[in-house]
Amino acid sequence: MVNKSIKKSDAGETVAIIALTAVEMRDRIASGELTALRVAEAFIAQIAIREPEVQAFAWFDPDFLRFQAQEADRYRGTGRPLGSLHGLPVAVKDIIDTAKIPTENGAKLDKGRVPTKDAVVVARLRKAGALILGKTVTTELAYLTPSKTKNPHNLAHTPGGSSSGSAAAVAAFMAPLAIGTQTGGSIIRPASYCGVVGYKPSFGAIARTGILPQSHSLDTVGVFAKTTQDAALLAEVLFGYDAEDPQSVVQPSAPLLSLSRSRPPIKPTFAFLKPRGWDEADPILIEAFEALSQELGVQCFEFELPPAIYNGLGWREMINHAEMARAYFRYGQHSDLLGAETQDALAKGNAVLARDYLSALDWANALGTGLETIFERADVILSPAATGPAPLGHASTGSAIFNGLWTLIGTPAITLPLLETPQGLPMGVQLIGPKHLDGRLLRAANWLTDWASEQLHSGAQND
Amino acid sequence: MVNKSIKKSDAGETVAIIALTAVEMRDRIASGELTALRVAEAFIAQIAIREPEVQAFAWFDPDFLRFQAQEADRYRGTGRPLGSLHGLPVAVKDIIDTAKIPTENGAKLDKGRVPTKDAVVVARLRKAGALILGKTVTTELAYLTPSKTKNPHNLAHTPGGSSSGSAAAVAAFMAPLAIGTQTGGSIIRPASYCGVVGYKPSFGAIARTGILPQSHSLDTVGVFAKTTQDAALLAEVLFGYDAEDPQSVVQPSAPLLSLSRSRPPIKPTFAFLKPRGWDEADPILIEAFEALSQELGVQCFEFELPPAIYNGLGWREMINHAEMARAYFRYGQHSDLLGAETQDALAKGNAVLARDYLSALDWANALGTGLETIFERADVILSPAATGPAPLGHASTGSAIFNGLWTLIGTPAITLPLLETPQGLPMGVQLIGPKHLDGRLLRAANWLTDWASEQLHSGAQND
Repeated sequence: MVNKSIKKSDAGETVAIIALTAVEMRDRIASGELTALRVAEAFIAQIAIREPEVQAFAWFDPDFLRFQAQEADRYRGTGRPLGSLHGLPVAVKDIIDTAKIPTENGAKLDKGRVPTKDAVVVARLRKAGALILGKTVTTELAYLTPSKTKNPHNLAHTPGGSSSGSAAAVAAFMAPLAIGTQTGGSIIRPASYCGVVGYKPSFGAIARTGILPQSHSLDTVGVFAKTTQDAALLAEVLFGYDAEDPQSVVQPSAPLLSLSRSRPPIKPTFAFLKPRGWDEADPILIEAFEALSQELGVQCFEFELPPAIYNGLGWREMINHAEMARAYFRYGQHSDLLGAETQDALAKGNAVLARDYLSALDWANALGTGLETIFERADVILSPAATGPAPLGHASTGSAIFNGLWTLIGTPAITLPLLETPQGLPMGVQLIGPKHLDGRLLRAANWLTDWASEQLHSGAQND
Repeated sequence: MVNKSIKKSDAGETVAIIALTAVEMRDRIASGELTALRVAEAFIAQIAIREPEVQAFAWFDPDFLRFQAQEADRYRGTGRPLGSLHGLPVAVKDIIDTAKIPTENGAKLDKGRVPTKDAVVVARLRKAGALILGKTVTTELAYLTPSKTKNPHNLAHTPGGSSSGSAAAVAAFMAPLAIGTQTGGSIIRPASYCGVVGYKPSFGAIARTGILPQSHSLDTVGVFAKTTQDAALLAEVLFGYDAEDPQSVVQPSAPLLSLSRSRPPIKPTFAFLKPRGWDEADPILIEAFEALSQELGVQCFEFELPPAIYNGLGWREMINHAEMARAYFRYGQHSDLLGAETQDALAKGNAVLARDYLSALDWANALGTGLETIFERADVILSPAATGPAPLGHASTGSAIFNGLWTLIGTPAITLPLLETPQGLPMGVQLIGPKHLDGRLLRAANWLTDWASEQLHSGAQND
């Protein structure tokens, strides 16, 4: 029995705890300054306040979270060594299997589905001492049909998709960290709309075993956090090969957190890209990015990609549809239970010819080399994370046109909540680095965040 | 200038040399008992006699062979360590790129094509000290349209395909060793028809970089030789990963020759399989295999595969056609220059849907597990290499129905020339082992060959 008489955290204490970065929270739990239970109670309290309107969770059980927290505190009391996420609650997108906890894939057909096994990433979370905070809402089958989740900055706006709940939960301080996935723009876009850090690692860095496959050549696991270092803390635990995911990569474990904290030997150089679709982007966004690139001065230069590279957007879509038609065959048999967007994608996918699919994969593999010359001159590419702030309304999750290319090529990407509209809607700054050099991308992201806060500070002084 | 005044080997010496196994030949060259030049002259003499009727070569230049042999002898004279194939001539299928030497893929469209780079396997040959003996005839684009090559045992019969020239060259003593490829049954079938050892290693064991891709999920490099040990000698040099072939496997180098020579700790057990198509096989072959399995006594038991596994034959064909439609797109643009079989396959491949192709690959991956229980009980599967001896005529290269499943599953297979018809046409005994345990398959093959020759010997005594 869970002890119902535990004193609830009061409002001031809740705010103080949920405002901590995940790294601070982790350090305080490890040092004994905070208990995992107090942290859990703080998020339970915040969820009670914000969840009714934001609706980020597909499954949440406060007693289950308390139980895990008590176990974590008990374990700590034994004096044994702690995992790097000990006591930290982490929210998990509802297409990622959690043993004994419902995982419904945002699909009517999977209502009541309860997996018997944890996904590899969930097993890695538990091994590192994390608590499963809850399952976050996904769009239907992690595709385009919107979910119930609202944007915490303005409930009238979309949170983006498909990792809608993961982005919104972190943005609304209902979770310090969350896991999501990206096949088109499903991490970077909702993170940008919700004003949090979204990090999509290099393709293959995190094994996908136990996660609903949509498109095995594109599906990428990533994280949501408040800061780059928090994202690094979580991603470091998730990184790694698994034999059951043949596209996961065998590589030494990357010290992402320490790399993200480290000082670059020289100030990083940013290659500013106005991608295809720039001309139709929101004028507020265009203005903000022009200003940002100017403020970066000699550290930033503008460049263009060869137009042919944007063929990748069409190839990505073809690969996504074709692989989805195979992966979602079972769902396609019950199309009356599917949203229009999913039905449409399956119809398109069912019509893709194998030879066209195979040549799209061939071309996609060749695209990466097109970026080599730019990464010889710049540390990272700087580009908008989305075409503007979160669109008004909930009929669409917004456009992923600024994300698809990086998903296809498999380069790591991160979005930083550095910009906002006069109405207070966030706009993300997307940084893209060379494949499998994730640590250096995180270091540049951390640097840019520090630089931006100094700018703000000195700007305030000049006022 | 090549010295034309070198004395040609006389007929007796030629026969003595070409009758050696490759291992003996290699050892004698290494010890100085034979020069590489004398070996080369012996094969040049034999080719002069047999090639006009057998037509196994797409390209052969005696002076170029002499030149390489002289270089090999000169190198040996320096006392430096020798590669494991030093001085041995090896014939190479004409879909395998050889720098500066024509490689025409058996295609009208590639007449006069001369690659600038060696395929990875050719580079490995040269590094091991082998001489490039010549390029052997392939069927058109390594598919089903027959080539000019005849069966050396009876010119009125097909040599099989697609590695027609490699099989026929070794069978006619025009080459001690040859390289070929198999996508359906293109090594095992011609080796069986021509009465030589044909060895198709585990899928992924030999990198295919620089070889005409037909079907990247199926294409497998293999070897032709007179004995299992000779096959092991050559394959050991060819084995190995190459980063440009993503389906090649990273594994420690396998000591295939010493394994093939080693004595099994206990007599091997053979699982005798009458595969789908058995009832339509040649009655002579059925009789010979029934007798063979009986003679093996307790070392052999008959078993059946679950019927569902034979769906793999259709999946293999679908995968082959779909991948071929992508790989041979350029050839398909000039279908007037293609044989009817290739045109037909491209038409079928162009119609395959991506989702059907992807699910065929999924199912194929699952088939391997269907064999696990049998390999717990037996060392190898024993089965016919083809449906009978080489068919009469040259309109078809014969049926690969007994090969396709093993190509799809990727298990290693070897055919041994242990049986023949009353008319003297050879019939191969195919052995199949567990994936990536190639050395043990070769050891069992060597054991079976020794056993068969003892049987023959004791049978002769009983007469």
